[in-house]
Amino acid sequence: MKLTLEEPRILVDSVNVVSELVNDVIFKIDKNQIKLVAMDPANVAMVHFTLLSSAFTAYQVDKPVSIAINLDAFKTILRRVKPSDVLTIELDEEKHRLRLQLKSEATRTFNLALIDMEDKEHKIPELTFPVKIETLSYRFDEAVQDMDVVSESVALVAMKDTFCVEAESNLNDARTELHADEETIIKSPGKEPIKAKYSIEYLKKILKGAKLSNKMTLQFNKDYPLKVDYLVKDKVQLTFILAPRVAND
Amino acid sequence: MKLTLEEPRILVDSVNVVSELVNDVIFKIDKNQIKLVAMDPANVAMVHFTLLSSAFTAYQVDKPVSIAINLDAFKTILRRVKPSDVLTIELDEEKHRLRLQLKSEATRTFNLALIDMEDKEHKIPELTFPVKIETLSYRFDEAVQDMDVVSESVALVAMKDTFCVEAESNLNDARTELHADEETIIKSPGKEPIKAKYSIEYLKKILKGAKLSNKMTLQFNKDYPLKVDYLVKDKVQLTFILAPRVAND
Amino acid sequence: MKLTLEEPRILVDSVNVVSELVNDVIFKIDKNQIKLVAMDPANVAMVHFTLLSSAFTAYQVDKPVSIAINLDAFKTILRRVKPSDVLTIELDEEKHRLRLQLKSEATRTFNLALIDMEDKEHKIPELTFPVKIETLSYRFDEAVQDMDVVSESVALVAMKDTFCVEAESNLNDARTELHADEETIIKSPGKEPIKAKYSIEYLKKILKGAKLSNKMTLQFNKDYPLKVDYLVKDKVQLTFILAPRVAND
Repeated sequence: MKLTLEEPRILVDSVNVVSELVNDVIFKIDKNQIKLVAMDPANVAMVHFTLLSSAFTAYQVDKPVSIAINLDAFKTILRRVKPSDVLTIELDEEKHRLRLQLKSEATRTFNLALIDMEDKEHKIPELTFPVKIETLSYRFDEAVQDMDVVSESVALVAMKDTFCVEAESNLNDARTELHADEETIIKSPGKEPIKAKYSIEYLKKILKGAKLSNKMTLQFNKDYPLKVDYLVKDKVQLTFILAPRVAND
Repeated sequence: MKLTLEEPRILVDSVNVVSELVNDVIFKIDKNQIKLVAMDPANVAMVHFTLLSSAFTAYQVDKPVSIAINLDAFKTILRRVKPSDVLTIELDEEKHRLRLQLKSEATRTFNLALIDMEDKEHKIPELTFPVKIETLSYRFDEAVQDMDVVSESVALVAMKDTFCVEAESNLNDARTELHADEETIIKSPGKEPIKAKYSIEYLKKILKGAKLSNKMTLQFNKDYPLKVDYLVKDKVQLTFILAPRVAND
Repeated sequence: MKLTLEEPRILVDSVNVVSELVNDVIFKIDKNQIKLVAMDPANVAMVHFTLLSSAFTAYQVDKPVSIAINLDAFKTILRRVKPSDVLTIELDEEKHRLRLQLKSEATRTFNLALIDMEDKEHKIPELTFPVKIETLSYRFDEAVQDMDVVSESVALVAMKDTFCVEAESNLNDARTELHADEETIIKSPGKEPIKAKYSIEYLKKILKGAKLSNKMTLQFNKDYPLKVDYLVKDKVQLTFILAPRVAND
């Protein structure tokens, strides 16, 4: 296996986001893609990450492999990557480690020990969503930060042509309204508002995905999981599924 | 009551400065202005803040009102204001709260609960000052920071055409001299130096006023209170009165 | 004694670097230079600093003097120096203190108490080095930071035309290769690799010298001290000697 990335930023940013939720992970690498499906330790959020072979300048995978990595250790190395570096990743099966080579003026090599980890297959749940919002990442990010002033959970409310983000505490409350426009597409049945509540703490972790793409998609239903997608065409698909907070949370 | 600010920065900066000294305050709002007079909990400094109706694009006040606010809670909301936001403030008397609406791409509404607080009228003392210094805010700010290296109190000394800021500790001492020039006007009787000492901790809080105006006025007398003024023409008047440190402080 | 610096930055940066290793120091000032030789408290690194009279716009020293200074106290004053300040240093022998005057728009004076300190003469050891590397400061700095990811000590390895910086821990390892080019000159006997290990903690302190010069020189031998030089022509010579880590460190 030998993979070369001329824009290593995309891997660095992806690993940073994923590591907000999970630490020890298994990457599955086959001839089409690198894939990761993981659940956060509290079982509240699932992350599904795909880095397509087309994101690489050279992508050679002879047989599918699964490699278990500690993301904290991986990140300390990735933090050393400069934008001008060409990153080559090789698997040293014998020594059970990943070799990362960074090439610019100097040639720098890091060998990262793989970890041992049981492969719990996480099945991605089949969900159907009546509501779908496409918007600019920073708009939803700001709305969640607004609510953070008031509470630790947020209600998403979809109406026809309007998407609201709301929060309330004993004393204060807050509300952001986004209206359908060129940058925001709101698909909602619209007869009556569809509302669900989610943890702000988790949303803030998920919203780090904005580093990858300035657009995002939100899908949800009444008291139902939220699905968040960031897409970098022909390169990355990053999806989160977040459990709702119910009634007396 | 309905007030609209197209440049909300002026309110945000003012509240940030005032909150350096006091936390729970009463704003008095009438058809000409929003006013606040408060004393810091240690009774060392008084702040007198006026935001004129002419600072607003719309200013509608039917009858004078007094509203008590916790500035920490107010600041967490004001921190969410973007420069491009148009801020509208309304009083919801029934629910005993202030409604803040921020309008740009999105419409964002925050409701802030008012607090209950006894209205101790603070009388602004009548003071007369033989010394008056007008200078650039950053010049005096730097002088105070210089003295902070050496001591926790500072002596202001006015002579004819020269204004000195001095400090000394057991071992070290420091002194900054400002001379009258185009940017610094020094009015002092000048026969002999007039000197008074003040707390650096308090001066540093007061000097946050430099965010509002790049000019400031200092007035003092021998072992007498210091009066500091920041003025934004037709918009804001921010005045501080700081008690002196005497002999064996 | 009266010394004037129009670019005080060079003194500020030098003191910042030296203070990484030592706190109480003796500066020896004669008609040619200001000199300091000191050993860090753990006896692992020696620093040898010379600021030449030619760095000053005015340099008047009547007789050689030794002055003992606490660098932390000195730094709190130097932190107040602005790039536009002209710095004048005078010795007030009677009051046993150093007078620092900063002149720009304002005239600012700081008096720093000298300390009492025994003058242990540190002899600079005579060392001979088969290996000499000249390179850009940031290149070696980055290599050391790379190794910091993996271990707390680093091995320097000189071969013909190649200079390697290596580190390894139980699990992971890292290696940076620098090749001779226009900016990197490698002088090494080259028959077989010459290798020595040094503390990363100390190297990081020494490498703050990059603030002074974008070029540096490294000299070492097998399991032998490392000599690091930063040179600002006609102004500053800053040299460090760092003890090696041996076998079972």
